[in-house]
Amino acid sequence: MNLILLFSNDFLDGSTRVRLSDRRFLHAKTIHQVKLEDSLQVGLLNGKMGTGIVTKIEDTFMEMDVTLETPPPPPLPVTVILALPRPKVIKRVMIAMTSMGVKKIFLINAYRVEKSFWQSPVLSKESLDLHCLLGLEQAKDTLFPEITLARYFKPFVEDTLPEIIKDTLSIVAHPKANTPCPAHVNGPVTLVIGPEGGFIPYEIEKLISCGVKPVHIGPRILRVETALPFILSRLM
Amino acid sequence: MNLILLFSNDFLDGSTRVRLSDRRFLHAKTIHQVKLEDSLQVGLLNGKMGTGIVTKIEDTFMEMDVTLETPPPPPLPVTVILALPRPKVIKRVMIAMTSMGVKKIFLINAYRVEKSFWQSPVLSKESLDLHCLLGLEQAKDTLFPEITLARYFKPFVEDTLPEIIKDTLSIVAHPKANTPCPAHVNGPVTLVIGPEGGFIPYEIEKLISCGVKPVHIGPRILRVETALPFILSRLM
Repeated sequence: MNLILLFSNDFLDGSTRVRLSDRRFLHAKTIHQVKLEDSLQVGLLNGKMGTGIVTKIEDTFMEMDVTLETPPPPPLPVTVILALPRPKVIKRVMIAMTSMGVKKIFLINAYRVEKSFWQSPVLSKESLDLHCLLGLEQAKDTLFPEITLARYFKPFVEDTLPEIIKDTLSIVAHPKANTPCPAHVNGPVTLVIGPEGGFIPYEIEKLISCGVKPVHIGPRILRVETALPFILSRLM
Repeated sequence: MNLILLFSNDFLDGSTRVRLSDRRFLHAKTIHQVKLEDSLQVGLLNGKMGTGIVTKIEDTFMEMDVTLETPPPPPLPVTVILALPRPKVIKRVMIAMTSMGVKKIFLINAYRVEKSFWQSPVLSKESLDLHCLLGLEQAKDTLFPEITLARYFKPFVEDTLPEIIKDTLSIVAHPKANTPCPAHVNGPVTLVIGPEGGFIPYEIEKLISCGVKPVHIGPRILRVETALPFILSRLM
């Protein structure tokens, strides 16, 4: 946690003082071992960042006097459309994407996505929100991403995708593509990433017919958690 | 497993036939559900890649007739020097680095590396080897990386580092650096990555005095498993 993310209801009525008693308090207390008058980096969810001076520490809560003055870092102009990974990986991938500044994330179905993955409690709003918060706290950012689950591939591609990719460079990472992944794209990108084992030919064809271009990142096949930062870095 | 990695002792005397009965056999049987005459991608450790045609499947082993003709993908010309991450992360990071083609890896101590991490069974030769094999099998590569553990920071920097960074561009990822991380370096690189919380000023000074240049990757602080692919992609 490189930044403590604050919510508007953390503030004591109309003041610049916050009181924390949850996970954030425990982390500050046990990991950072905060003391009175320590200065911690804080940020208001979807707002500015600044510092919090610790004014009170009790057994079950702490209070800080907060000043917010700097804007969060700019978002990454990339929309990521990701075939739903296995639950263990979703957590890490949500943290990774959020920490890199991705603000629009679609988790979609594909033939090689195991049906059981959609039942995972990791996909609950609470769990997805938590992992996004962890990513923002890691990266020192406050802008919460928008996450959409799309359980049906075909209607997603036919009805939703055209609107998403409009006015963006839209690509799908595909090991069999002939074109290398573009670098330093000076503008918004839509990046589609398939499941373990890749999209099946029907799915690639559907994406292509919608205007998405298959690209490769070389002869190596990377796991999604490695491929994502590898490609996002290349695009920037 | 996108490629089955073979060892010279898998081959039946002087033949092109291999017999597998371990983890690789179980994976092929249960995940890939191989059948007689299936063609699987294989590679000889530190040698060529090709195909194996399944010639026999029994309860406890399978045999393949192997043809090896294509060279593995070129290595990444980057030496990675990494402050030892927590054990859970080491596994993933070894797989990630190996899958991206890193062939020289140093795991070093730093002030903010918890002492207990060095006691982890993940650092046993068997465990490190296994995670490197998983990375090679993931990426379809055969060239095994060289891994060195350096438990003492000061002697490592003073005695070993000068030889490593000779004739390479040597950089350390450091959020407080003034210079951005270089991109598209056309030559060998030595990349140093600190622990969670970063190197302490003394360590950064030691690295600088040895000729290593601090660079940043923007305002966001990334976890090591995200930072590594992000930076390696940028360097290439």
